Amino acid sequence: MEVIVPIVTPFTRDNALDKAKLKEHAENLIEKGIDAIFLNGTTGMGPSLSAEEKKEALKTVYDVTDKVIFQLGGLNLDDVLSLLSFSKDFSILGVASYSPYYYPGLPSKWVVKYFKAIVEKSPHPVYVYNYPQATNFDVTPQLIEEIGGVTGIKDTNDDFVHSLRYKRFTNLKVYNGSDYLTLQSLTFLDGTVTAGGNYMPELLVLQKRLVSQGKVAEALQVQETYYKFLDLARKYGMMASHYVLVKELQGYDVGYPRPPIFPLTQEEVEGITREVRELRKEYLYLLDKYGFTS
Amino acid sequence: MEVIVPIVTPFTRDNALDKAKLKEHAENLIEKGIDAIFLNGTTGMGPSLSAEEKKEALKTVYDVTDKVIFQLGGLNLDDVLSLLSFSKDFSILGVASYSPYYYPGLPSKWVVKYFKAIVEKSPHPVYVYNYPQATNFDVTPQLIEEIGGVTGIKDTNDDFVHSLRYKRFTNLKVYNGSDYLTLQSLTFLDGTVTAGGNYMPELLVLQKRLVSQGKVAEALQVQETYYKFLDLARKYGMMASHYVLVKELQGYDVGYPRPPIFPLTQEEVEGITREVRELRKEYLYLLDKYGFTS
Amino acid sequence: MEVIVPIVTPFTRDNALDKAKLKEHAENLIEKGIDAIFLNGTTGMGPSLSAEEKKEALKTVYDVTDKVIFQLGGLNLDDVLSLLSFSKDFSILGVASYSPYYYPGLPSKWVVKYFKAIVEKSPHPVYVYNYPQATNFDVTPQLIEEIGGVTGIKDTNDDFVHSLRYKRFTNLKVYNGSDYLTLQSLTFLDGTVTAGGNYMPELLVLQKRLVSQGKVAEALQVQETYYKFLDLARKYGMMASHYVLVKELQGYDVGYPRPPIFPLTQEEVEGITREVRELRKEYLYLLDKYGFTS
Amino acid sequence: MEVIVPIVTPFTRDNALDKAKLKEHAENLIEKGIDAIFLNGTTGMGPSLSAEEKKEALKTVYDVTDKVIFQLGGLNLDDVLSLLSFSKDFSILGVASYSPYYYPGLPSKWVVKYFKAIVEKSPHPVYVYNYPQATNFDVTPQLIEEIGGVTGIKDTNDDFVHSLRYKRFTNLKVYNGSDYLTLQSLTFLDGTVTAGGNYMPELLVLQKRLVSQGKVAEALQVQETYYKFLDLARKYGMMASHYVLVKELQGYDVGYPRPPIFPLTQEEVEGITREVRELRKEYLYLLDKYGFTS
Repeated sequence: MEVIVPIVTPFTRDNALDKAKLKEHAENLIEKGIDAIFLNGTTGMGPSLSAEEKKEALKTVYDVTDKVIFQLGGLNLDDVLSLLSFSKDFSILGVASYSPYYYPGLPSKWVVKYFKAIVEKSPHPVYVYNYPQATNFDVTPQLIEEIGGVTGIKDTNDDFVHSLRYKRFTNLKVYNGSDYLTLQSLTFLDGTVTAGGNYMPELLVLQKRLVSQGKVAEALQVQETYYKFLDLARKYGMMASHYVLVKELQGYDVGYPRPPIFPLTQEEVEGITREVRELRKEYLYLLDKYGFTS
Repeated sequence: MEVIVPIVTPFTRDNALDKAKLKEHAENLIEKGIDAIFLNGTTGMGPSLSAEEKKEALKTVYDVTDKVIFQLGGLNLDDVLSLLSFSKDFSILGVASYSPYYYPGLPSKWVVKYFKAIVEKSPHPVYVYNYPQATNFDVTPQLIEEIGGVTGIKDTNDDFVHSLRYKRFTNLKVYNGSDYLTLQSLTFLDGTVTAGGNYMPELLVLQKRLVSQGKVAEALQVQETYYKFLDLARKYGMMASHYVLVKELQGYDVGYPRPPIFPLTQEEVEGITREVRELRKEYLYLLDKYGFTS
Repeated sequence: MEVIVPIVTPFTRDNALDKAKLKEHAENLIEKGIDAIFLNGTTGMGPSLSAEEKKEALKTVYDVTDKVIFQLGGLNLDDVLSLLSFSKDFSILGVASYSPYYYPGLPSKWVVKYFKAIVEKSPHPVYVYNYPQATNFDVTPQLIEEIGGVTGIKDTNDDFVHSLRYKRFTNLKVYNGSDYLTLQSLTFLDGTVTAGGNYMPELLVLQKRLVSQGKVAEALQVQETYYKFLDLARKYGMMASHYVLVKELQGYDVGYPRPPIFPLTQEEVEGITREVRELRKEYLYLLDKYGFTS
Repeated sequence: MEVIVPIVTPFTRDNALDKAKLKEHAENLIEKGIDAIFLNGTTGMGPSLSAEEKKEALKTVYDVTDKVIFQLGGLNLDDVLSLLSFSKDFSILGVASYSPYYYPGLPSKWVVKYFKAIVEKSPHPVYVYNYPQATNFDVTPQLIEEIGGVTGIKDTNDDFVHSLRYKRFTNLKVYNGSDYLTLQSLTFLDGTVTAGGNYMPELLVLQKRLVSQGKVAEALQVQETYYKFLDLARKYGMMASHYVLVKELQGYDVGYPRPPIFPLTQEEVEGITREVRELRKEYLYLLDKYGFTS
């Protein structure tokens, strides 16, 4: 049972990758007990990063930890394979790729070929990142079998039946990526990949601990608090909000998102800050109750 | 009333942009009477092209014609603005951008900001390329108004009510981008943007002519033939099929697509070739009937 | 090319079928030049009517006209067949049925059997009423072929490509049932079935006339006015609004809808009445311009 | 934590309610330890039943047990209220209603009014049966609050986040109605309403027992077997399959479904029977292992 965080990618005011901030953030997440970092995911604005930036991100995070799943998917297979080749020098947990996105009605034969090419060349275990709502393609259990050689799947899906099906029909390690199903995924799957872990790593680790102790009722109370901050992130705008929330709840700066994911406006920053500060005592209460020293 | 073709982007076997082939193709389309070329669209695999490749494509096509709408959208606004700046030296019909794609639930405030930034800096008329099925975002008439300063919209949508709404609630020039609604869009909107025009430019120009002459019944017969080739493209795999169909129906080579849009396999090429050759007499019959010399 | 109106079903304050009002309404529609009445459709709250009420409705309207398509679909096939048998004594244009609704994922084998049973026993031509958004089932061209013996289809669908497909792949008469595609359906299909015809029969007949004369630009102007009243109906609540709109635009009372389609509240009635009266001069202008004496 | 079964409604060959068979079936379910019977639900073909049949069903089942939730929803509110009034003489657990179905885009104001009318007049606790995929309407937590006075909700939804939201934002007892989320609902909600309980009541009761004992791994194994029979039901046709599966796994006849839910053909009956008999040893193994005497 693992808790994995799709790490936020910090940018400078000039829209460049902010490596120092990325490193500091990765360091904190690992220290807090996260099992793995999912690099260049949706939360990390993966599809907005150049191949060069994806490499830089890997080098930066690898300075801190080897518990990394390196997401390297993209719309040019040559680029993807060159990232795969680049990853050889890093002894990481695995590589991941979403399916080719944007193109509606992509024939599944091509998606299978795409992933087969990755599996064939990969020096690391391969994770499929399935996010149909973003990519307009669903990598079903049957396609997983056609691809062959896949190690795990991150299924970002509020449809929990969909995730459970991978447990039934494949041998993969199965993670659900919905922020709102952390506890459910820890109980019934192999774990959770949740953006909320960027700003609430302690509560995420705590959920894992309580589930492993069979304390469902207590876990539900923690999830309830977890939910409240997730709601805030959605209210002000996913991804951009994360930058403010990390600062408020973890105490350091992770820079800015990059347009078209625009930074929150001054007014929005004030709004979310006020709301998060009101909620923070609930957060601190839980840290205290469960013996976190923050 | 205009017929616009989202031009296929030819690649070499090594997955590089094949400029010579792109130029030859653009030349033929213009000669056949197409009103404008939509460059770097979905059919042209726009989201798979680097900023550099988009520039090269513009330079190449501009050698042949200035009837170009230059699609330059992307997930990094800085890149988009630099393409916009690059376009200054070309006196083209306009620039276009799809909305930021991939990210589900993108707040509309950011999409508005994105397009506002483009409108502000653009040296050319701006077209919004709306393709909700691909981008997971719908640029509604209300958002068009919030953005301000937009010239036209390409709405790729089988929902024709959706396209008609732009005519009602905006002053834009409105084009529908569904291959299967050419005649309907020529009759009730400002025109059509259709991938089928890559391999059937004569039939597309003919549909326009017949509509402008009020010959609906004849136009429907032409569309019926047009449909049959479109069906073939879908049967064998959209985009990859186009490369074979251009060759068969227009007589020159447009190279290859680029993985993950994989070229058709040898077997598929043989299949589609056989089928297109059976259908071609219908095509030639129409060319002959309506006095095209091909 | 036909204009068909899915007639509103008038109820009394006590929620009984108001036969006198139904008759008066049917009479007016026929007088205004409508080609056929679609009885017990969605607008007529067909799924809310008992088998007995459906029979009463037929008897009532048949007093006025035989230009009737009698919708008799339902979730108990025995009831459907008994309505079919009842229809024997009426020499009407045809019978129609939607596919069984409510049940998600209904296997198509059962829908085919259902329609086959109707076709086999029907004393009249059979029309399939396809409304996937309501029934959660799509009667595709292929299923139409499996059923066999069908005369026509009413496809209620903003997806116009979907309706056009029936023209391509079946021999059916094809009507689209979207209020917003009247002109488009008159031009490219066999006609339109539109609820707006209940309160704007003149404008509907006028659209047909202008299309048959090839006057697209004028027809578009009429549709523009038609749209404005449709928008009003949607704003205040589909179906319930119709009762007010018929009264305001046609001058007689058609009673009430039946809960859970609740009548508009006093406040809503005042609001829609005010708005319709402001728009009415546009309506009257068109009547006058095109020589309708109302 | 409760396990509730939406009971199958047996019909005779003549398509009449088979009361004797319904009674026998209810008796068995209660004996096997089911907490409540959900009467006239989707599995029971509620929308296909007349008001009279719904009453008969209640009378019949009430002979056996008062652990009944009486589903009485429909498209004629007068009928619904008369069923409500009829229920006064039965001291049952509650009444339930789905929201009005079929009509797309039903304004929520009417759905609220509909449920308010039920709550006002109900002699029993009221459960909202939310099944958006069937009704095309979603009774959100906010609407639940507007209605007021509701006791519980059955949310039939593979989207588990959706069900969890009722726990967060209402005080309702929350049941999920997806067959594939029994264990998940028993762990994180107030229980499950599952059609599979008709033919596998022992495995359902067992899942509840294991969850209450915190034996997640064992519960998952039981669910795995439960899933296999559910898959069979889907393969041969939901609802119609249930009649065969009850016979095979529970040993008595529950008659037939009613067209348009057609009985399985002879060939299908043979197919499903063969498959269920192959799987049955897994079923019996579990009964034996956990001390069920069947």
